[in-house]
Amino acid sequence: MPNTARWAATITLTATAVCGPLTGTALATPAPPTLYAPSSLVFTTGHGEIAAEAAPDRAVTLSCAPTASGTHPAATAACGELRAAGGDFDALPARADVMCTREYDPVVVTVDGVWQGRRVSYERTFSNECVKNSYGTSVFTF
Amino acid sequence: MPNTARWAATITLTATAVCGPLTGTALATPAPPTLYAPSSLVFTTGHGEIAAEAAPDRAVTLSCAPTASGTHPAATAACGELRAAGGDFDALPARADVMCTREYDPVVVTVDGVWQGRRVSYERTFSNECVKNSYGTSVFTF
Repeated sequence: MPNTARWAATITLTATAVCGPLTGTALATPAPPTLYAPSSLVFTTGHGEIAAEAAPDRAVTLSCAPTASGTHPAATAACGELRAAGGDFDALPARADVMCTREYDPVVVTVDGVWQGRRVSYERTFSNECVKNSYGTSVFTF
Repeated sequence: MPNTARWAATITLTATAVCGPLTGTALATPAPPTLYAPSSLVFTTGHGEIAAEAAPDRAVTLSCAPTASGTHPAATAACGELRAAGGDFDALPARADVMCTREYDPVVVTVDGVWQGRRVSYERTFSNECVKNSYGTSVFTF
């Protein structure tokens, strides 16, 4: 084999060894383009005044795009309410038809993740579980 | 009606007015006892060095208790890997069969929520998307 041919073979083999696995990996794990802004959240609730000191009693997930899903017990309703509030958790109206005692047994709710492409890191303390569940009709009822 | 009977009637009516709605609300929104430690997470990934400056390109949810679910594309595998790593995201081994370029195009991954009852707030930067996907076989591949 002349020197030129030998070099060509070496280069081809090297290229296959280096690029082959790379191409394979790229095909195996494509980054899918998203056609919608992601909305994926995780909610926790625990007994206490601040999340840092309250072990989470429950935690649920909520995805609102492309469709409502997650372990949140009322995912579709919760997504609808959040859309109506423009993703502002402080803007969720309290229900007028719920009466709660004034007992002080604080529960803290956290919400983390992404709402319509914006990062969310929210924490709010309610004086008791009943008050927590009275905000919005379903967002905090989990 | 004698005075005693009138008082008894008043007290009963008051009790019904005050406690009735409370009981109704309590029945409508019971806090379900959890038989397992909650494991609900939200993952995000974005282009940049730190999450605070990187808009999230994608966000997925992952629930591992009682069963694997969520918008994570490989929920069951990801839950299995996390269990094997004891929930330690830094302990996820890099795959040996993946070759990545050394191109610097950083992506930052965040994980928030709860793993087996403990709060999780994790952030990690990889030098490029390929390197991100090479950690664990599926946890960061979303």
